[in-house]
Amino acid sequence: MIEVEVKARIDSFKEMEEKLEKLGAVKSKREFQEDIYFASPIVDFAKTDEALRIRTTDNNTFITYKGPKLNDKAKTRKEVEMAIESAQKAKDIFEEVGFRAARTVRKNRQYYTYENFEISLDDVEGLNPYMEIEIALDDSQDYSTAQDKIFKLFERLGITDGFERTSYMELLENLNND
Amino acid sequence: MIEVEVKARIDSFKEMEEKLEKLGAVKSKREFQEDIYFASPIVDFAKTDEALRIRTTDNNTFITYKGPKLNDKAKTRKEVEMAIESAQKAKDIFEEVGFRAARTVRKNRQYYTYENFEISLDDVEGLNPYMEIEIALDDSQDYSTAQDKIFKLFERLGITDGFERTSYMELLENLNND
Repeated sequence: MIEVEVKARIDSFKEMEEKLEKLGAVKSKREFQEDIYFASPIVDFAKTDEALRIRTTDNNTFITYKGPKLNDKAKTRKEVEMAIESAQKAKDIFEEVGFRAARTVRKNRQYYTYENFEISLDDVEGLNPYMEIEIALDDSQDYSTAQDKIFKLFERLGITDGFERTSYMELLENLNND
Repeated sequence: MIEVEVKARIDSFKEMEEKLEKLGAVKSKREFQEDIYFASPIVDFAKTDEALRIRTTDNNTFITYKGPKLNDKAKTRKEVEMAIESAQKAKDIFEEVGFRAARTVRKNRQYYTYENFEISLDDVEGLNPYMEIEIALDDSQDYSTAQDKIFKLFERLGITDGFERTSYMELLENLNND
């Protein structure tokens, strides 16, 4: 699967919730997500622009691999997400074969759906408010059209700047390095 | 979890099934198992005596990590087994982060239970008949007692030699290298 995803800083969750509801977006689940990101023993994932993580939510646990971004504007990339039985077991296996738990990102995420968009209002521990808009494509579909649609939706919601290609994990890392 | 497991070549499945039933062992599930073993990009698992595999059975899919053997006679080792959603996704993730699918082992396994033993009659594609007896221990329990019990059970079933510490994967590999 290819995901096309763009995120931007927003001023306030409350204001954006009102705009989304006015637009007709449907409020769906709200969940707490804890992501443990792993460092590879053979490459620097920051340089290869990949990510390997375990995500634990209120109801599920996943392993997610994200491949390098395929273009500059949006975060268009390969993503493999697989449900698993246990975050503790997955961490144990990764560590045994040479990976290292490098950073944990915790957030409360409020999902909205609108047409074929998935919209997230992300309250990340340690960061300002962000909104993410995503479209999932089959491997064969064209992603530049999807990307244009995402930017048009941001515009309709009054957002024309503050776009951010850096991951939450790296944003937190940059804060700590200041 | 620590598993203590010993396997031995046997002459015939039919003869051993009769002996197991005479002993009072309970025939449980029979399943087809396909194991994909992975090679690590940083160590030679054959040398470090580890294994990382995806097991697909009739009903389930798992990732299994096996640590180095802790002693010489039995295959006493750390094992982490985690249920997953999809073998294909797991293979995709492993390959993306540098592992390589190295060998596939297919077998029909007939399970028996007796006291706290798990007994397997293993019809491995390309190998002669084998029987495996296993006890699972908490990390804290003593494994030499468990090991003695396993060898005594083999003796009661008429097996005093033909013990094999080499994994099915390596036995198949050795065949191919002849």
